[in-house]
Amino acid sequence: MGEFELLARIRERLPAPDSRVRLGSGDDAAITVPAGATATSVDALVDGVHFRRDLATPAQIGHKALATALSDLAAMGAKAGEAYVVLGIPTDLSEDECIELLDGMLALAAKTGTDLAGGDLTRADSLFLAITVVGHAASPDRLVKRSGARPGDLLVLTGEIGGAAAGLEQPDIEELRVRQLEPTPRLAAGQALAESGVTAMIDVSDGLGADAGHLAERSEVGLRIDAAAVPLAPAARELSEATGRQPWQLLGGGEDYELLASIAPDQLEEAEQAVDEAEGIALTTIGEVVAGTGVEIRLPGGRLVEPEGFDQLA
Amino acid sequence: MGEFELLARIRERLPAPDSRVRLGSGDDAAITVPAGATATSVDALVDGVHFRRDLATPAQIGHKALATALSDLAAMGAKAGEAYVVLGIPTDLSEDECIELLDGMLALAAKTGTDLAGGDLTRADSLFLAITVVGHAASPDRLVKRSGARPGDLLVLTGEIGGAAAGLEQPDIEELRVRQLEPTPRLAAGQALAESGVTAMIDVSDGLGADAGHLAERSEVGLRIDAAAVPLAPAARELSEATGRQPWQLLGGGEDYELLASIAPDQLEEAEQAVDEAEGIALTTIGEVVAGTGVEIRLPGGRLVEPEGFDQLA
Repeated sequence: MGEFELLARIRERLPAPDSRVRLGSGDDAAITVPAGATATSVDALVDGVHFRRDLATPAQIGHKALATALSDLAAMGAKAGEAYVVLGIPTDLSEDECIELLDGMLALAAKTGTDLAGGDLTRADSLFLAITVVGHAASPDRLVKRSGARPGDLLVLTGEIGGAAAGLEQPDIEELRVRQLEPTPRLAAGQALAESGVTAMIDVSDGLGADAGHLAERSEVGLRIDAAAVPLAPAARELSEATGRQPWQLLGGGEDYELLASIAPDQLEEAEQAVDEAEGIALTTIGEVVAGTGVEIRLPGGRLVEPEGFDQLA
Repeated sequence: MGEFELLARIRERLPAPDSRVRLGSGDDAAITVPAGATATSVDALVDGVHFRRDLATPAQIGHKALATALSDLAAMGAKAGEAYVVLGIPTDLSEDECIELLDGMLALAAKTGTDLAGGDLTRADSLFLAITVVGHAASPDRLVKRSGARPGDLLVLTGEIGGAAAGLEQPDIEELRVRQLEPTPRLAAGQALAESGVTAMIDVSDGLGADAGHLAERSEVGLRIDAAAVPLAPAARELSEATGRQPWQLLGGGEDYELLASIAPDQLEEAEQAVDEAEGIALTTIGEVVAGTGVEIRLPGGRLVEPEGFDQLA
């Protein structure tokens, strides 16, 4: 497989970009004319670390790589813009599998209004992807950092979590596997939350406890989470019943890509409505921001655990 | 080595960014406020494909990865802006070696005015780097594409080539090894050429013949190159004498990261002066743009060769 031939096949599949992209793939660099501020994030996925080729189709791998990158833009409240894709291609990945992987990515790109504006292909010992995404906002203060949470804010979460952890454990259950392999970046919810005035935001990729910890650290506040209030995905609830585990034991696994945010109590109702309108999902209050440091998670029954202990329960 | 600990060590080393970068590493995404147009390019380097850990120090690997990415911005005539770095880290690369690699990158970043604004670390079977660079220009028409060459233009080249190919062949000669391992992205020359009105530009990374071919194809023109006019690096000339090969046999190896551009004859003198002032190197006329397609290289003595044949001579 020649690099230039594969590149030509890939370029044929790229739809015409947004007018913001003045020059797409095929030159030394892409040319864009951003208006306002940009949010830029990069994510790498490696075979055997972030996915397994025997458990995921090429299309799912492509989807997941772009989804995890876009989830970071969602967590900023940015609108998706451009993606730049590096593929490290092992000799046992066929040209058709590369195209299938790209098609998985392009389907999500189309759904989210993302332009694949450039990339690089290289040989590699095992499959890896590195995706840079650029999002846009009218001005830098319309983007939401991790650092703005204030004591007195409520802690809110979009959607339900636990599904991805259950999917990792039970890959033969289609609904759970898809949840883990085909996450939905909450771009619309993220923008709705940004407009509703959330003070800090992060996506739940590492685990609820760990990501709450990142937000607490950057905001220099403490967080209290009530595990009983965290909405558990129905499939995860079924799994917890089937395996005799407590529901909250499936909450800390990460990879659900829901959004965790802090918000002043008087903004809550507006934010709930905005998230429902934008994405048709719930926004649930799962805790509060307090003075101090660190994250304290209250389990049903009253026991308090540290984030590390909580995530490891999953 | 924990990802978060290494990240913390890395962040400590990052200097304060330019005011264009409103938020650097450590959040879900970096925030920038670009003015005018941006040029974005991504490059991946893989151990055993683009470098060898037994022949290059970690600092040289870091330098080369950023240099090859910035060279694409040079070829657009863009000013260097931000870099986003993915590191795939194998178990046998120590934390100190990661820091040394980063320091190699940071030294070049400082020299070129590039801010390391974000990145991602992951485990990997073998070392890989994927670097996204964003460059800036006042407007999109100040950036130079590969597609603007017109019949009647002259073909010009910055600096001298052949040094990298010689370095690959003779890694024990310090001067040659450095030329191959520590290329200089011609950012200042690229901006000078853009201001002098070059009509198309590309960096010579794949080989003079191959890269001339890319420019010819995108511009829908033919190119004629006079091999005797192409300036050969002195060290490569010495190597050609020592090994009894013709000098032009060292011209096609690529990885020199000089700039190849097309320019109207009446702009040539201004461009030569501008490149000399910007970077202290020569701009040499090595051929011309003609109607038609493809690249024809005239060897000393008159024989004509195709680009593929020419590059394979190196």
